This record gives sequence, structure tokens and C-alpha cells, in this order.
Amino acid sequence: MTRQGSGSDLGGVRALLFDTFGTVVDWRSGIAREMAAFLERHAIAGDAAEFADGWRRLYQPAMEEIRQGRRPFTRLDVLNRENLEQLLASRGVDPAALDLRELEVLNRAWHRLDPWPDSVEGLARLRRRYLIAPLSNGNILLLTEMAKRAGIPWDCILGAEVVQAYKPLPAAYLRTADILGLQPKECMMVAAHNDDLAAAADVGMKTAFVLRSREHGPGQTSDLAPDGPWDVVADDMLELARKLS
Amino acid sequence: MTRQGSGSDLGGVRALLFDTFGTVVDWRSGIAREMAAFLERHAIAGDAAEFADGWRRLYQPAMEEIRQGRRPFTRLDVLNRENLEQLLASRGVDPAALDLRELEVLNRAWHRLDPWPDSVEGLARLRRRYLIAPLSNGNILLLTEMAKRAGIPWDCILGAEVVQAYKPLPAAYLRTADILGLQPKECMMVAAHNDDLAAAADVGMKTAFVLRSREHGPGQTSDLAPDGPWDVVADDMLELARKLS
Repeated sequence: MTRQGSGSDLGGVRALLFDTFGTVVDWRSGIAREMAAFLERHAIAGDAAEFADGWRRLYQPAMEEIRQGRRPFTRLDVLNRENLEQLLASRGVDPAALDLRELEVLNRAWHRLDPWPDSVEGLARLRRRYLIAPLSNGNILLLTEMAKRAGIPWDCILGAEVVQAYKPLPAAYLRTADILGLQPKECMMVAAHNDDLAAAADVGMKTAFVLRSREHGPGQTSDLAPDGPWDVVADDMLELARKLS
Repeated sequence: MTRQGSGSDLGGVRALLFDTFGTVVDWRSGIAREMAAFLERHAIAGDAAEFADGWRRLYQPAMEEIRQGRRPFTRLDVLNRENLEQLLASRGVDPAALDLRELEVLNRAWHRLDPWPDSVEGLARLRRRYLIAPLSNGNILLLTEMAKRAGIPWDCILGAEVVQAYKPLPAAYLRTADILGLQPKECMMVAAHNDDLAAAADVGMKTAFVLRSREHGPGQTSDLAPDGPWDVVADDMLELARKLS
């Protein structure tokens, strides 16, 4: 194992790379909000948050086809759209009977997610000292529109589409460091997900765990605590900024 | 010809894509400034602005090897570094005798170029209405560090490295529009160079010419006027913002 413990020297870190869905923004509330309006408009029975969870559950299997090389790289907006149609069909709603434009607007709900209350201020503080960028499985347009709407002050938009590889494949992390002209140890991955941090640590990046105990709603059971020797652990982005200042 | 004349409808434009070297930043003064210090430190005879021009002249031939498929895509930081060594060697300076770190710092002078006086305010105004991004042959790190230092408010960093193609190849423009989920006609290329605008128009983008009559210094002879039916012509970025508001 090349993972570094929390006593490791962080003085060489130049860039902070952020998981976005769950770590920077609250995807579940945002998707449920727009899904609720959609369900009501079409008189579709069901709980909007449960629809959001169902949509999200199709996310990893769709990316896995690409990680395994069974499908060429395809951006998340396309996968989300396919997954939305699959979700609706599984609930007895024929997507072909719906207006294409309305489906596309609903699909872009992923571009309109709100940050957690501490995210923008925390990132603004971290940006004074570090280059900050998303290292997300979201595509460039999704992350760009999200940042513009929410005022997230990224220095640039990185992520799966730029490197043509989905996390947690090592290439997603290594190519991102290479683009920045940095060695992996000069990058710190920031995430609310232990598996993302494990993959980043495995290629030599530094790691910061930020607790997001309500990402999956009030009944969340995963990622309620760090489960690896991450370099930094913080309760939110403001605490992360304090610990890295 | 699919080029649109200046009477064309611009209401559908959603994104403005900017050439950067020469159009947004003054590369010649910035490079000459850092080159002057380097020449003085090493007691190398010569005019720093002329060295800057010489370095820049190696830029197109280096990219042409990649455009023609004789070399895999290679980011501009690498080409600039090779060109710097070639430039110095051609002036009787052995780059191998110089400190590697110092050469790298000089090479990154391209990351530290100053915007023209109107650029930042003009872009800030345009950003309120449009998605704005560079569509430059500069690499992601170069454009990111330049923007951070100078306060250029890009919504995201696009360009050759993201699409793995150098302008004026059609792919550089078309893949950029595709990333933004836009048709070419929903994008406007903004440049101080007629050839860049011609290539953008040829794939169906809208075009804006911004005059930069001192890009090549006081004796500039090229691009002193628009030479095509560009949709908008402006004397600087503030006038562009007025014309597009």
C-alpha cells in the first residue's frame, strides 16, 4: 500500500481535486425537487426522493459498461438521459409518450444542483492557496452550468470527460494530475466517499474526507465516517479550509 | 460558403469562444518582459521583443506536425519548451548548459501573460449573458494559471487539449461545440485573427473580430482590419460587450 497516513507532509500539495455529487452539491434534494414537479405535472404516483434515489442507482452500472471497455466513453448527460428513460419505464411511465424537450429539461436537473451551505465559501477560501477543480464523473457542460448557477469558484473544470475515463479507474486520477503538470502526491482528492479516496490514494494522491451525512437523506448508512488513513478529515468545507490554511 | 454576413441573427448564440494569445492577452509584451530578465542574467546579447517574436514564430510549425498527423497530440507547454531550446540554440546559446529549472520557469512565462486593459471587464460583462470559454491552442494548465493570475472570469477552460486538436482544424471547433451541447451556430468565435474566424465560420459558427493592432508590436502589418463577413466587429472587448448586450 502506498497510502499516506494523516501525519504525512501536506506542504507539497498544489491542487485540490473535488468529487462533486454529494461532496460539493446536494444532488438528492435538487433532483427530488425537479422530479416532484415532473411527477405532479404528469399525475404520476410516487415519492420524488425515491425516484431520485432510483435514478442515481442506475449511475454506477451505466459507467461500469464504459470502465470495462464494453462501450466507448460516453458523457454523463447521455448516461443520465438513458437512465431517466429506464427509470420511468420501470415505474410504468412510457418515456416515448412524453415531450422530448421536457425530458431534456428534467435531465438537466443535474446541472442545477445546489451546493451544501458551506461549499462556496469553503472553496473560495481554499482557492486563495490552491488550484481547485472538480474531479467528477460529471461532464464538462454539466459542471460548468452547475458552477455558474451556484457561484462555485473553480479555477478550471476537470473530470471524466476531460480525461475520457470514469473514476475510480486509476487513469481518471493520473491523467488529471498530468494535465496539471503535477505528480500525484502534489494533488489532494477531496471527497465524501471513502472508495473515491481509496482509489486516489492508491495512485499516490493525498486525501481529504469531508463528511456529508445527509447526502442520501435522513437514513444514510454509508460514508458516515472515514474508513482509511486519509490525510485530512473535516466535517465540512469550512473546516477543510481551516485545516489546510 | 456557409459564412454568415453581419446581418445574421445572433439571438441564438449561447456561448462565446475566445482565441486567447493576442485576442485576450498581450503575449508579446509578457514574453519580452521575462525574456529581457533572462537575457540580462546570462549576458546574452539581443533584443528581448525580437526573441519573443522568434519564439512565437516556431509555434505554428510545431503544431503543424500534429495537425498533419506526423506526431501525436502534444500539449503547448511541451511544444513551447522545445521551441525555446531551439530558439536559444539558433542564437548560439547552448540550452543544455542552462539550469533546467530556470528554463522551465521561463517557459511558463506563457502562463503569466497580462490581459489587454479592456479584456477582464469586457469578459465579465459578456459572462452575464453568455457562457464564455477560451478556445485556444494553449493547454489547460497554461490557460488556468493565466486566468487565475489575471482574474479572467472564464466559465470553463476549453481548447486544444480538451478536444485533442489544434486550430484551425475543423475538429477543434466542432468538438468544442459538442462538449457544450450546442450546434456550431449557437457558438460565436471571438478572435483578433481573420484566419481563426474563417475556420470557425467554415464549420458554421458565428464570428466576432476584435481589433488588436499592437499584438505584434508597433510595426504590425497583419489583421489590422476584418477581411471577411464577420457577424460582429469591435475595437476592443468593451465594445464587443456593448454590441452583444
